Amino acid sequence: MSVLIEKLRGIVGAANVLTDGDLTAWEQDWRKRSRGKALAVVRPGNTQQVAEVVKACAEAGTAIVPQGGNTGLAVGSIPDDSGTQVLLSLQRMNTIRGIDAANLTVTVEAGCVLQTLQEAARNAGFLFPLSLAAEGSCTIGGNLATNAGGTQVVRYGNARDLCLGLEVVTPQGDIWEGTSGLRKDNTGYDLRDLIVGSEGTLGIITAATMKLYPLPAAQLTAWAAVPSLDHAVTLLGLAHKRLGAGLTGFEVMGKFALGLVAKHFPTLRVPFIDEEEVPYCVLLENSDNESEDHARARFEALLETAFEAGCVTDAVVAENLTQAHQLWHVRESIPLAQAEEGLNIKHDISIAVSRIPSFVAETDALLQREIPGVRLVNFGHLGDGNLHYNVQAPAGGDNRAFLREHEDRINTLVYDEVEKFEGSFSAEHGVGSLKVEKLEKHKSPVALAMMRAIKRGLDPQNILNPGRVIRPETAQ
Amino acid sequence: MSVLIEKLRGIVGAANVLTDGDLTAWEQDWRKRSRGKALAVVRPGNTQQVAEVVKACAEAGTAIVPQGGNTGLAVGSIPDDSGTQVLLSLQRMNTIRGIDAANLTVTVEAGCVLQTLQEAARNAGFLFPLSLAAEGSCTIGGNLATNAGGTQVVRYGNARDLCLGLEVVTPQGDIWEGTSGLRKDNTGYDLRDLIVGSEGTLGIITAATMKLYPLPAAQLTAWAAVPSLDHAVTLLGLAHKRLGAGLTGFEVMGKFALGLVAKHFPTLRVPFIDEEEVPYCVLLENSDNESEDHARARFEALLETAFEAGCVTDAVVAENLTQAHQLWHVRESIPLAQAEEGLNIKHDISIAVSRIPSFVAETDALLQREIPGVRLVNFGHLGDGNLHYNVQAPAGGDNRAFLREHEDRINTLVYDEVEKFEGSFSAEHGVGSLKVEKLEKHKSPVALAMMRAIKRGLDPQNILNPGRVIRPETAQ
Repeated sequence: MSVLIEKLRGIVGAANVLTDGDLTAWEQDWRKRSRGKALAVVRPGNTQQVAEVVKACAEAGTAIVPQGGNTGLAVGSIPDDSGTQVLLSLQRMNTIRGIDAANLTVTVEAGCVLQTLQEAARNAGFLFPLSLAAEGSCTIGGNLATNAGGTQVVRYGNARDLCLGLEVVTPQGDIWEGTSGLRKDNTGYDLRDLIVGSEGTLGIITAATMKLYPLPAAQLTAWAAVPSLDHAVTLLGLAHKRLGAGLTGFEVMGKFALGLVAKHFPTLRVPFIDEEEVPYCVLLENSDNESEDHARARFEALLETAFEAGCVTDAVVAENLTQAHQLWHVRESIPLAQAEEGLNIKHDISIAVSRIPSFVAETDALLQREIPGVRLVNFGHLGDGNLHYNVQAPAGGDNRAFLREHEDRINTLVYDEVEKFEGSFSAEHGVGSLKVEKLEKHKSPVALAMMRAIKRGLDPQNILNPGRVIRPETAQ
Repeated sequence: MSVLIEKLRGIVGAANVLTDGDLTAWEQDWRKRSRGKALAVVRPGNTQQVAEVVKACAEAGTAIVPQGGNTGLAVGSIPDDSGTQVLLSLQRMNTIRGIDAANLTVTVEAGCVLQTLQEAARNAGFLFPLSLAAEGSCTIGGNLATNAGGTQVVRYGNARDLCLGLEVVTPQGDIWEGTSGLRKDNTGYDLRDLIVGSEGTLGIITAATMKLYPLPAAQLTAWAAVPSLDHAVTLLGLAHKRLGAGLTGFEVMGKFALGLVAKHFPTLRVPFIDEEEVPYCVLLENSDNESEDHARARFEALLETAFEAGCVTDAVVAENLTQAHQLWHVRESIPLAQAEEGLNIKHDISIAVSRIPSFVAETDALLQREIPGVRLVNFGHLGDGNLHYNVQAPAGGDNRAFLREHEDRINTLVYDEVEKFEGSFSAEHGVGSLKVEKLEKHKSPVALAMMRAIKRGLDPQNILNPGRVIRPETAQ
């Protein structure tokens, strides 16, 4: 192995091949549920170096695990514990190569932190709309490799939808240069979208050309109490109709989830939390290309119609940016409040929007029947049909014991319901290593066979992030 | 072969296996440039039958050419002239399976005509935005197989962007059922987008779940004279900024192209055609979720700003729908006017929007220098960087002789310029059989190798639309 290490040092410089010292930042996953051991952490500084690293590893038959900000939630970007895999970190490749204002695009290297990209776009007068909790640490390469979602998907789509082109190093160490920024290009198979979301198993994204949007003239946030999930769905339809593409956020939050925020973060003001008859609240965001006055008038007209239709019982529109941030902060504090309350089981599921109310009613009842005392923390991006349908242990018991005893059963109950409702067991977090078996269980054999054929075709040596997303047939 | 024919008759019924009579509708391409000979035209009525037909053909080693409305422009959906290929027509599978209003989706079979789908959506209160010249005949399956573009791409994207899920018959005759209508689903590789745009070479699309949008409250059309292509690009940026997602159309038309319309269709009123200093006109469409008054006020404010900035010299906003249709009709008459003028060479290219003015200046000069007397018919979807940069023979000469002598040379000159500007030689029309060699010449060897690996992996028998899009290495 020392021959390979020497070769890698020759390619990226000795200082960028880490084998000793504390490698926790690269070897441990974001939620600290898993820890691997790398043969070496290799930090190339440009695309040519990535290609040479891959060639050297391919020659040695050594597997490569690509990593961006290491904020993934499915344990897909840390090495396994064999000590034989090279962890390839893209973090040094963080240059914004250029903004093309007339083309509304930015070309950026994979290791650029999402927030840095958002700010560069804003400074140039544009919006880069991808936005998610880890944006201060995650990288655009990781966002693309996992097809990240977040809070603006209802208007702008997932990371895939924001991407016009990629630069990719293949499992053979060749460079595919595809960052041209074209909005129409029908010259052969859609390699871009195949690589996006493949979690580093088909190629290593080294750079991307992403869409930009004009900065909206105003952005307003509202918080509405709704009498049921059904009414939340009706409100969503109204908001689409009235605001059109102005609807840039539509989040739903169950009362129990909001109660945890109020309990653990008492300084936060949670609207309508003390009102008896409010099972769900909705956070809406309206972006407007005209003016704040216009945005407010449109928002108020929408909410008035919603009141009259009975699908909103109370609502506030933030008076200013500070108030808007406070409302979003309440929404974003739910996962933290859950952690404060104790261990819990997270699900990241999606269902057709129209079927969400019946899915939740049926699954709530099922879980409460099967696992007495469970507490359901239900919130998410209703505009995209994406719920974080999480399960908290019963109050006052031994959380750890509860999880040990019930986690598998709860997951099975939830994912079987999701399959029954033709939903997805991983809406925005991906498969990584955590959900490889779920994929094998819930995906159709036809789709699995197609995925395996693609993996075999593009990476016959099975050298890129092996065992993640899809395993060869023989491994089952 | 009669064994296979008998088998096919058994699957779809004798009346739906055509071997005699006039098969021109299936064997000749839309622009009548090519004619093939099918072993049989097979018209299955449901997905199960498609799967059985594919299985029977695979067993016999017989190639299959899938076909929708047969309106493609790259000769990708007719059989070759060997008389050995089965032409599989999806036209009988034309059911709209259902509209899910709350999910904003429609699930539709591949053979449904685009206009039928548009109308069904409108009758349910929604917009299905895909719109293109052949919409009265083309089918949604063909639109997806070729990733069709059209006039609304600047806001709604290509056919791929409108698709949430597919039902596909694989080259092995298996059915992949993926029409769930989810907006977020990160469970493995993006098979959907790989099949979309693969022109029937990787799988046969039998049904799809497509996005719907709320019907806009008003839609206005304007026509503006601009002093140069540079100014058209500036106007596009202003329109994005002011109208946001309200900008649903942005077409550019050169003076010579508009002159052909005025010459051959004298009853059409072409605005500003007699003004000396108008090299280009732009057609803008503004869709508004509020009201016609609001749309008009926003449009007029935009055009006023554009006047002041000097990027528009004259403009009209259509007063009513009839006037709007007249303006669009002028734009859509350009290809017909070209045909009236005589034989011509068509290009469907895309370039980053920012580089279009320099591409056109350079390529215009090059062609006029190299092929004296050529006339350039330049128009297209500037909002997407997509030009139909067409070349008309010199006036008064022998068109046919001119084309025979110069067509290859002109194509080479244009496509080499496109490559120099990092553009695409096929923005929305695909590869089919006409551009297979162009793909091999202009696409990077790395991308070609990835495409070949995917084709080999998914269709090892090379049974689906062989020779189209990508040829096996050995065929070169």
